[in-house]
Amino acid sequence: MLRADHPASAGFDLTAYLARATDAVNRALDRFLPRATAKPATLHKAMRYSLFAGGKRLRPALCLAAAEACGGGWPAALPLACAVECIHTYSLIHDDLPAMDNDDFRRGKPTNHKVFGEGVAILAGDALLTQAFEIAAQSEAAPRYPHRDLVMEVAKAAGSLQLVGGQVADLEAEGQSISAAQLRYIHERKTSALLCCSVRLGGMSANCPPRELEALTDFGYHVGLAFQVIDDILDVTQTSEQLGKTAGKDTAASKATYPAIVGLEKSRRIATQLTDKAFAVLKPFRGRAEALQALADYLLKRDR
Amino acid sequence: MLRADHPASAGFDLTAYLARATDAVNRALDRFLPRATAKPATLHKAMRYSLFAGGKRLRPALCLAAAEACGGGWPAALPLACAVECIHTYSLIHDDLPAMDNDDFRRGKPTNHKVFGEGVAILAGDALLTQAFEIAAQSEAAPRYPHRDLVMEVAKAAGSLQLVGGQVADLEAEGQSISAAQLRYIHERKTSALLCCSVRLGGMSANCPPRELEALTDFGYHVGLAFQVIDDILDVTQTSEQLGKTAGKDTAASKATYPAIVGLEKSRRIATQLTDKAFAVLKPFRGRAEALQALADYLLKRDR
Repeated sequence: MLRADHPASAGFDLTAYLARATDAVNRALDRFLPRATAKPATLHKAMRYSLFAGGKRLRPALCLAAAEACGGGWPAALPLACAVECIHTYSLIHDDLPAMDNDDFRRGKPTNHKVFGEGVAILAGDALLTQAFEIAAQSEAAPRYPHRDLVMEVAKAAGSLQLVGGQVADLEAEGQSISAAQLRYIHERKTSALLCCSVRLGGMSANCPPRELEALTDFGYHVGLAFQVIDDILDVTQTSEQLGKTAGKDTAASKATYPAIVGLEKSRRIATQLTDKAFAVLKPFRGRAEALQALADYLLKRDR
Repeated sequence: MLRADHPASAGFDLTAYLARATDAVNRALDRFLPRATAKPATLHKAMRYSLFAGGKRLRPALCLAAAEACGGGWPAALPLACAVECIHTYSLIHDDLPAMDNDDFRRGKPTNHKVFGEGVAILAGDALLTQAFEIAAQSEAAPRYPHRDLVMEVAKAAGSLQLVGGQVADLEAEGQSISAAQLRYIHERKTSALLCCSVRLGGMSANCPPRELEALTDFGYHVGLAFQVIDDILDVTQTSEQLGKTAGKDTAASKATYPAIVGLEKSRRIATQLTDKAFAVLKPFRGRAEALQALADYLLKRDR
């Protein structure tokens, strides 16, 4: 069992929380998506293959936990949590393509294009990206945040200046010698943007006041960066079996990573500092942010 | 100069109308999209390369003309017209990829992946798809059709049961012998869905009553099918120079097309019948549907 050991969330049973969140998210996603038998079946099978490949549902869990931190409940946050997971899954399918990172395994299973072929994999990604907006439009908007705000939030985080932009910058950095500042630029876009969006959407579903939305933004930004630094560290220190995806890929592809630029020890220190900053902004939420805090703690200490 | 010769729109100057619409849409798209120099510049250059490659802006023009038919103006319809054009352009970029139709030319210019590489082309498509929703969220919603309806409209038309589903079905039909019914299934999704969406969004921007929206849906459906039948005919009868893209591709790829299944003459008859049906549903709109009618007439008679 995962027990958070940061003082503020000590004793919080994160394993049980994540299991409940994963279950709720999986059921909701299953409802939102067309059946695997819906025509064309190949496409819907491909979408569901990656969406239900055993992802940890961290972004949805962050969304739900952020809603709680703002005094909201899961039902209002769930559609938005699902929208974010669709975006995340589409981005993994496209990132794994031969024209990008060329990965054969993801979450311990063959990647989408390995099973369905490149054409269908690209289209399954396209369909999941589109599905995300359909789901977001189906959510119940809170008074302060109408649907245009929710859709804009997802579109900005997933768009050319954030998620997609980060992936292009990442592609361009391959084999190049880049600075720590440039690496942060990539990480902010590839990872922080969507994590930030997850917690912000959670807060928005709870009709949070602007100052809470600002705190969640800060939290998401720092947790997002810490998350990516840890990812870089794990790529160097863990085996493929432990990760469920090809380890050492960053080094093999001469990708810029935190360990490569500042070394392993300093990378660990940076991740801890970022997580501490994330904890600090949660103070005003007090006990309601227990799950959010436990999640940040877990992200820092995870080994895969 | 194009002069529509269908009685109801005889004398309507479509060349001038299309030029004005194209100009308005190009200016609006230029405002909605990040600059070509915005970081990462490669991505924004790639997005703009395909978006401003000289497309005929037929879908946006249909959207604007539908708004007029319902008594609305261009300003309210323009963002939605731009959103549809972003969806259309993304779908062309992805369709042209080696894993799909593997096309080297589009609108007389090298395709996106030929210029920017496959990785960036996939991501430019992703970014344009995302941009479409950001633009739709920025439109002014009319009283009857809040943003959730507008976003849902775009997401449904572009999603796994329509546009993307049609492309998968098309991929799967390659080299197969399929029936006229199956071909219609593909065309309804690959072409009609987005044309339908274009005119419906135009009507929605004008706050049209439900019965007008129904008529526009009918119109878009029939024009969409006619459009694709003509496309199939042109692929057989025109040269690559005339089309600005590789001609004879359908035959080379053993793709099912109307001329291949029912012959050239019957295909022409079907296109005319479909267009006549489209004309018929416009009657209640009277003179306000002049532009819409002229566009349908032009789509039937175009030679590229």
